[in-house]
Amino acid sequence: MTLPRIGITLGDPGGIGPEVTLRSLSKRSILSLANYILFGSRTLVQETLELLALPMDIPTVSEIGDAGLPAVSLLEIDAPLEAAQMGIASKENGEVSFRFFEEAVKQARKGALDAVVTAPISKHSWSLAGIPYPGHTEYLSQSYPHALMAFWSEKIKVALFSHHVPLKRALERIKTEKLLEFFLRLHKSLIEAGKANMSILVSGLNPHAGEEGLMGDEEKKEIGPAIQQAQRAGIRIEGPYPADVVFRKAYNMAGTIVVALYHDQGLIPFKMAAFDEGVNVTLGLPFIRTSPDHGTAFDIAGKGRANPQSMTAAIKLAAELCGSASNNTEEGH
Amino acid sequence: MTLPRIGITLGDPGGIGPEVTLRSLSKRSILSLANYILFGSRTLVQETLELLALPMDIPTVSEIGDAGLPAVSLLEIDAPLEAAQMGIASKENGEVSFRFFEEAVKQARKGALDAVVTAPISKHSWSLAGIPYPGHTEYLSQSYPHALMAFWSEKIKVALFSHHVPLKRALERIKTEKLLEFFLRLHKSLIEAGKANMSILVSGLNPHAGEEGLMGDEEKKEIGPAIQQAQRAGIRIEGPYPADVVFRKAYNMAGTIVVALYHDQGLIPFKMAAFDEGVNVTLGLPFIRTSPDHGTAFDIAGKGRANPQSMTAAIKLAAELCGSASNNTEEGH
Repeated sequence: MTLPRIGITLGDPGGIGPEVTLRSLSKRSILSLANYILFGSRTLVQETLELLALPMDIPTVSEIGDAGLPAVSLLEIDAPLEAAQMGIASKENGEVSFRFFEEAVKQARKGALDAVVTAPISKHSWSLAGIPYPGHTEYLSQSYPHALMAFWSEKIKVALFSHHVPLKRALERIKTEKLLEFFLRLHKSLIEAGKANMSILVSGLNPHAGEEGLMGDEEKKEIGPAIQQAQRAGIRIEGPYPADVVFRKAYNMAGTIVVALYHDQGLIPFKMAAFDEGVNVTLGLPFIRTSPDHGTAFDIAGKGRANPQSMTAAIKLAAELCGSASNNTEEGH
Repeated sequence: MTLPRIGITLGDPGGIGPEVTLRSLSKRSILSLANYILFGSRTLVQETLELLALPMDIPTVSEIGDAGLPAVSLLEIDAPLEAAQMGIASKENGEVSFRFFEEAVKQARKGALDAVVTAPISKHSWSLAGIPYPGHTEYLSQSYPHALMAFWSEKIKVALFSHHVPLKRALERIKTEKLLEFFLRLHKSLIEAGKANMSILVSGLNPHAGEEGLMGDEEKKEIGPAIQQAQRAGIRIEGPYPADVVFRKAYNMAGTIVVALYHDQGLIPFKMAAFDEGVNVTLGLPFIRTSPDHGTAFDIAGKGRANPQSMTAAIKLAAELCGSASNNTEEGH
């Protein structure tokens, strides 16, 4: 078995992305999981290795190709970076971090990578650089409208039925047909990520999941029927369970993922349970994409103090999920 | 300083209420906090003491009166209980548990008790007995429309702006005027419970608390203005913060309570953080009322296996909160 190939974008050069990436890759347990290709600049990599006093040798490769790769290599991106502007959002940081990401997605799309792990970018830097996307996920959603946003940790796993919409709008989307389509899509994505045996629990919407219709009828009218139809399609799915029960029920159940019906329903318990080790995963792409569940942390960037735990978890999870997903790239090679 | 007087209702005789009550009261650390008056029947108390092999002496008192009380006494309620019907809901269990509760509230209302701790009743038993309330809180809300439902643990404290209504209805209630009234009422209740220094954090409604209006405008239009008005009234209150941040922020902050805008927003993080030790508190009454955050657990009742942790926490909290609340009874005595 050949090792998976994981691209890692260094994120905003002014943030903690380069630090947490190299700190994670300095661990033997991580190094052994995959061949890593950094998408970044030589300057940035060298400055960060010096900051962290890491004696790593990271050769530059000009293309990924079919040949054997070193454990960690750098695919240098032609980007206008003289020196990182630490601790601030800037046009240059925005341009550079977008280019790192764009190139990694391009390589993954053509099958040269099994997974892409994205260190945090700054929305503000992207906006200063005139990048027309608020973030990684929106960029990916444009090419892959069936992308699914999920949050993953050892303790709890959550897939979001809706994310960045006002709560009122999120409630309007709770219709049998849309839910069923989502459940089928999630099921398919889990199979592609090598998690065919995972079972799905669905949260209710109203207090006590509506308590037999006494406190809201979406469970009976919309959610329940969608779950039943998905069950008839052979999916291991159950619910709706009261929201204040289902996340507790799924806690520490490695083979279970909870469908949250709206952003905060999923993110409240996820952040309570998996504060430092949470990973954001985009499913439903022809490659795996993960990212740490934190931002650029400009206030502590460049000081060597950033905690790499979430980035390390993001890399580990990418390696785990792409073990079986590497057959699903758009083009073989 | 005289000890507070805490009434404890034994709950449904077929459930775990009597067990967890007596198990809690057998602890020296609990016994020393208050004078306890059980509202129940002699049969039930004796059967439970035997089940648990507890060598406690619990004398019967005919009235609470002004005189010194034993550490734990029983105010026997004239109720038709021959023997508890264990492990099931029944008309008789419903009648009896309602009478225990009704009498305790009567005593608290006239100032003979500083606090009432309620062991779990069965909705089903109450319904079989024709009791026109689904639970304790609804009964109290009728006499005390300003009652507030809160959930309390060492790790996290949550007050619910709305509770048993469909989520859509809960959203309609999010109006500046109603929120401000709630904040003022919560602040007053906290003062009455001896928690004048507690600070209040308010959760947002939409993802990322609306992110400057990009994902919903209730934060700007309704919630923010209510918080500002409450601040001008001298209340220590802040927000709105993103829901997936605020509960984490309040975690382990003993002097902080979070206002959740709807049932699940508060109960999801509460049950994640305080699973076994959560206490339900009703604030805004002229006496303190607490209860354990679990039900009758008919399946394990009468077996001596019930975990008293939440009941113990409910008793402790009642003692803590009524230390300074005893001046707020409707009538002195």
